Amino acid sequence: MDLVNVFDFEEAARAALDRNAFDYYLHGANDEVTLRDNRAAFDRIRLRYRILAGIRDRDLTTLLLGHQLSMPVLAAPTAFHKLAHPDGELATVAGVGAAGTGMFLSTLSTVAMEEVVAAAAGPVFFQLYIYKDRELTRDLVARAVAAGCSAIALTVDAPVFGKREPDIRNRFHLPEGIAIENAAPAGYGGFPDDPGGSGLTGYVNSLMDPSISWDDLEWLVAASPIPVLIKGVVRGDDAARCAEHGASGIVVSNHGGRQLDTSIATIDALAEVVDAVDGRLDVLLDGGVRRGTDVVKALALGAKAVLLGRPILWGLAVDGSRGVQAVLDIIRDELDTAMALCGASTLDEITPDLVV
Amino acid sequence: MDLVNVFDFEEAARAALDRNAFDYYLHGANDEVTLRDNRAAFDRIRLRYRILAGIRDRDLTTLLLGHQLSMPVLAAPTAFHKLAHPDGELATVAGVGAAGTGMFLSTLSTVAMEEVVAAAAGPVFFQLYIYKDRELTRDLVARAVAAGCSAIALTVDAPVFGKREPDIRNRFHLPEGIAIENAAPAGYGGFPDDPGGSGLTGYVNSLMDPSISWDDLEWLVAASPIPVLIKGVVRGDDAARCAEHGASGIVVSNHGGRQLDTSIATIDALAEVVDAVDGRLDVLLDGGVRRGTDVVKALALGAKAVLLGRPILWGLAVDGSRGVQAVLDIIRDELDTAMALCGASTLDEITPDLVV
Amino acid sequence: MDLVNVFDFEEAARAALDRNAFDYYLHGANDEVTLRDNRAAFDRIRLRYRILAGIRDRDLTTLLLGHQLSMPVLAAPTAFHKLAHPDGELATVAGVGAAGTGMFLSTLSTVAMEEVVAAAAGPVFFQLYIYKDRELTRDLVARAVAAGCSAIALTVDAPVFGKREPDIRNRFHLPEGIAIENAAPAGYGGFPDDPGGSGLTGYVNSLMDPSISWDDLEWLVAASPIPVLIKGVVRGDDAARCAEHGASGIVVSNHGGRQLDTSIATIDALAEVVDAVDGRLDVLLDGGVRRGTDVVKALALGAKAVLLGRPILWGLAVDGSRGVQAVLDIIRDELDTAMALCGASTLDEITPDLVV
Amino acid sequence: MDLVNVFDFEEAARAALDRNAFDYYLHGANDEVTLRDNRAAFDRIRLRYRILAGIRDRDLTTLLLGHQLSMPVLAAPTAFHKLAHPDGELATVAGVGAAGTGMFLSTLSTVAMEEVVAAAAGPVFFQLYIYKDRELTRDLVARAVAAGCSAIALTVDAPVFGKREPDIRNRFHLPEGIAIENAAPAGYGGFPDDPGGSGLTGYVNSLMDPSISWDDLEWLVAASPIPVLIKGVVRGDDAARCAEHGASGIVVSNHGGRQLDTSIATIDALAEVVDAVDGRLDVLLDGGVRRGTDVVKALALGAKAVLLGRPILWGLAVDGSRGVQAVLDIIRDELDTAMALCGASTLDEITPDLVV
Repeated sequence: MDLVNVFDFEEAARAALDRNAFDYYLHGANDEVTLRDNRAAFDRIRLRYRILAGIRDRDLTTLLLGHQLSMPVLAAPTAFHKLAHPDGELATVAGVGAAGTGMFLSTLSTVAMEEVVAAAAGPVFFQLYIYKDRELTRDLVARAVAAGCSAIALTVDAPVFGKREPDIRNRFHLPEGIAIENAAPAGYGGFPDDPGGSGLTGYVNSLMDPSISWDDLEWLVAASPIPVLIKGVVRGDDAARCAEHGASGIVVSNHGGRQLDTSIATIDALAEVVDAVDGRLDVLLDGGVRRGTDVVKALALGAKAVLLGRPILWGLAVDGSRGVQAVLDIIRDELDTAMALCGASTLDEITPDLVV
Repeated sequence: MDLVNVFDFEEAARAALDRNAFDYYLHGANDEVTLRDNRAAFDRIRLRYRILAGIRDRDLTTLLLGHQLSMPVLAAPTAFHKLAHPDGELATVAGVGAAGTGMFLSTLSTVAMEEVVAAAAGPVFFQLYIYKDRELTRDLVARAVAAGCSAIALTVDAPVFGKREPDIRNRFHLPEGIAIENAAPAGYGGFPDDPGGSGLTGYVNSLMDPSISWDDLEWLVAASPIPVLIKGVVRGDDAARCAEHGASGIVVSNHGGRQLDTSIATIDALAEVVDAVDGRLDVLLDGGVRRGTDVVKALALGAKAVLLGRPILWGLAVDGSRGVQAVLDIIRDELDTAMALCGASTLDEITPDLVV
Repeated sequence: MDLVNVFDFEEAARAALDRNAFDYYLHGANDEVTLRDNRAAFDRIRLRYRILAGIRDRDLTTLLLGHQLSMPVLAAPTAFHKLAHPDGELATVAGVGAAGTGMFLSTLSTVAMEEVVAAAAGPVFFQLYIYKDRELTRDLVARAVAAGCSAIALTVDAPVFGKREPDIRNRFHLPEGIAIENAAPAGYGGFPDDPGGSGLTGYVNSLMDPSISWDDLEWLVAASPIPVLIKGVVRGDDAARCAEHGASGIVVSNHGGRQLDTSIATIDALAEVVDAVDGRLDVLLDGGVRRGTDVVKALALGAKAVLLGRPILWGLAVDGSRGVQAVLDIIRDELDTAMALCGASTLDEITPDLVV
Repeated sequence: MDLVNVFDFEEAARAALDRNAFDYYLHGANDEVTLRDNRAAFDRIRLRYRILAGIRDRDLTTLLLGHQLSMPVLAAPTAFHKLAHPDGELATVAGVGAAGTGMFLSTLSTVAMEEVVAAAAGPVFFQLYIYKDRELTRDLVARAVAAGCSAIALTVDAPVFGKREPDIRNRFHLPEGIAIENAAPAGYGGFPDDPGGSGLTGYVNSLMDPSISWDDLEWLVAASPIPVLIKGVVRGDDAARCAEHGASGIVVSNHGGRQLDTSIATIDALAEVVDAVDGRLDVLLDGGVRRGTDVVKALALGAKAVLLGRPILWGLAVDGSRGVQAVLDIIRDELDTAMALCGASTLDEITPDLVV
């Protein structure tokens, strides 16, 4: 089977994975209205390309928080990579590095962050959930800094976990031998099978702190010598507050449609967020990015870069680090083509007039 | 089979009920444009959730007409519960009570209102159809008051009955042993099988008074020592008149799409109604509520609470009072999650800026 | 099979008719965009019904050009009724008369107009195509007047015939024994089978005059002692000109989607036409009317009455005059119900505020 | 099988062609959003036809760059006609000539341009890709002029080639004996099978110059004694620049949805382009034209003529030059009918008020 686009990788991953894992990765919350709309919203945007722009080559590189990336596309934080491949996040970071870009590493990684960062060729941003156990949380931040992570990305769209119904039906669980390695030393590394539903949801809703607030952001910014990003913003007023409370960046995200169903599609929320922060910090976006033209649209509407979530997992499931790299290379090629066809030789030339 | 959401209950009820009953509950008038649009209109609304709201717990309780409810969700008035379960409305009111909320009891109840109210843990609002036989009507009101009902809810969207085509095809009828118990003492307790169509439509169109008017509302308000709600309002001007004529509340409703097909979806009509009454009375809503996020949307647009119709019947059909409670608990859990994810700790914090 | 709505009649007619006839009646021009949109446009309109209107009975009667009709619904002019039933237009006019309303009789009737009018209980409006042979045309008008027709309805949306592709594929033809009786005496009563396509299109495009103009309207108005209606108007400027040139009424129509595909849906064109004529003449409408609520919508937007096309033919095919009457009675019952549910006791109370 | 419309020709071509060829012709880039939208955008436009226009005959002729055409419909430049028929572009030009109109001849013709022009009855416009090898490019222009081409049409929407996924899967290739005859003398006449994807994309991306700019347009205009058209414009600002840099015409085109997916539909881009050029040059359009009414819509929105792409190929595949002529005759007949039904006797009478 030819793997021509990231949808092909999804189909190949469907064949490669068991249902517990594939459904966990694939699905969203409730009726999946947002999951579908994240994607559909990109397809509703039309491109008005420029002609005769005199472009011989495209430069896709960008500088994000001081890190040189081969393109404005990073791996989004996703959990439990060992469900997709025995090497787990090590394979992911290897593929991401081979592609010359950076990776967001989940708190719920199945490989310890120190190992992941050690294997990384590019920046690793540590995605943080704040546990009710603040000792554990403080320890995670300290470990991330010590390990060499380049930033902390605080997830704010998941004070409790969304209702992911396939996981309830599947009694989603971690197979023998797979643990949340970042939390394992503190005793929070696994969750039991839950005969009543998703073990993960029980884990998160019992251990994570739903009450995190702007004060916690201030605490985190003060405690962290590395930049703090806020992931899960969909409103301008919240985005402005992030800037005011010391965040270094924002990820416009609705958690890939896995949290609050019928929340606004990320690409539809982007312009308001960009307008509100008014250049004070970098705005990233995830949710529904599947084509190079999606990257063009996000950048035209003001994003600095985008994060790729599920497609990275499909690549990982299909062929480990090579699969991850292949997925990123597909997006890179599509982005390069889209820029050429739009008449943009650099990312700065991806301007708002390109979209309608 | 897991019963994870209310749609699962619908499917289980489909298997549990005969066609005469299931079709009666499920369907709407004519082409069911409004039936579908009630639901679709909710899904068209997008949520703009707030982050870092610092919420540990959610308080879902509300005070409605002086009654404390565990959440802003009540059972809508629906007819003939013995079609779904042998215990009929007694099972429903038990499930509703176990869930800590209130119930609208239909004129067309298959259990006498006195028995229902006696078994109720929370408020029972008596839904009233005005019969041409005003003695019977007056008797119903007096009985409702004497029985301890907390309010009268006058249905105004059904001066005649809508054309529910499956009921015509099924020759909808009440099986042996099931009667309209509230009207039975007056001799209006049953309707014969109608070889030409729905027996119910014949009953209603021959016995109910299509000519009820604002004068009747005044009469009813004067005659009733308990509050009078008006159910079936979709216009601001009508809503304002309700306030002027002494109503204590309004239910924005199109009878679940069972009356005038292509009438406006209730959630689309809500804002105009809320604006017109300008706080003079409470506005409730029914029609298409199937998810916790729907409740959030209705409250964000100004509703005080919502009514749940068909899903209550699916719960009743599947498991009697336990099924009713289970359905309400699902909506409660979803509402709790949605509030957490929207950054709202109380119902008052569900503000208009959450929807777009 | 129950025949509960007019769609049921369509299905029954499909079973009763051969393909040559059924396809001729059912289909529209080219891709049938307009055919579908005529219907869909009605379903896009939402009703904002009024409550507590105090209506005991509805009066559906109307006065159209001096003729009392039982309801604002007439039979549209359609061709070749003998394809549907051996009694042809005689059965139709009998059913229409039994329903207490009026009929538009096509130039392409398979029964001579004198016979039809003689059998009519209500008004017959003669639909006129202008033949290149003006003698024949003049003769048709004179015969219509002499026969007792109540008006001439000049079709203006068919200077040439639309491309009805199923008729081309079917080699649409008139079976042995069926002729265009109104034109038969002049020798234009039949058309040969056309091995290359629809015989009718060949007939029309060779014999009808595509060049009819506003002068012809003036000529016709001057020549006709009975009122002249213009059928096929979709623009305000044309409607105003109709008024200025002596027309007594307009039928907003796109020929049931059978002429110019992608032309505007009639209900979408109505308001502009009504506004332009400003009360100077009556505005009727056809195209997509299938439900009582459609009649309400058309009247709310300013139509005096609507015409029912294909459903009349389905009734005719299913059960002759009784079928025609049954279809009209279904629409009447639905209109009566819709008016009751909208809070309108007379047609005048069907006001613009009912639609959105 | 009757070939009643151009969609019938598509189905017949599907049966006649192998997959390598049919997929190459049929498909577009990536998810084919633009491919579908080019067509859907036409169907979203509604026609407001005029009545009683007094039109006996329609005059479809037009004068384009001094050439008399039987109708405002030409053959778009498409590649590799020998994939569809052994006579290749010779058959096409014969069919086009028989239909009395003109043809755009692709650089990627499988018959040398001299042979095609020699066989032409009407104007041939040579579509130019600029090779990195400017000698070859200059030679192509000189040959086109010498051969008698009437204009050069510079393609500007393909600096690199779009991602046409079926061609990648099919390993699109030119069968033995078929070559790019216009480039063959210079040694660029063929491309090898590419085991990794579409051979054509490799060919184009390696040999064509992606960096063409407004300077190249000036160079071309200066070098060309015949008019230069720019094909692939979708923006007003670019259109204005075309006028300023000496172009004689514009083709609003997105390359039939084969280049930048999700680019704006051509009919949606037309009005902005027409407005920007303000009569300084002729505006043509291609993309999604399949019906006579589409031609009416394009002309109503300001196009001088339209180009027909894939349908010409379906005609060619089905029946060579006769098939090409048949397709053009279908569109002509449909346009004639549409004009009659719109009340337009000449192309000038196709005015903006006809569309909404």
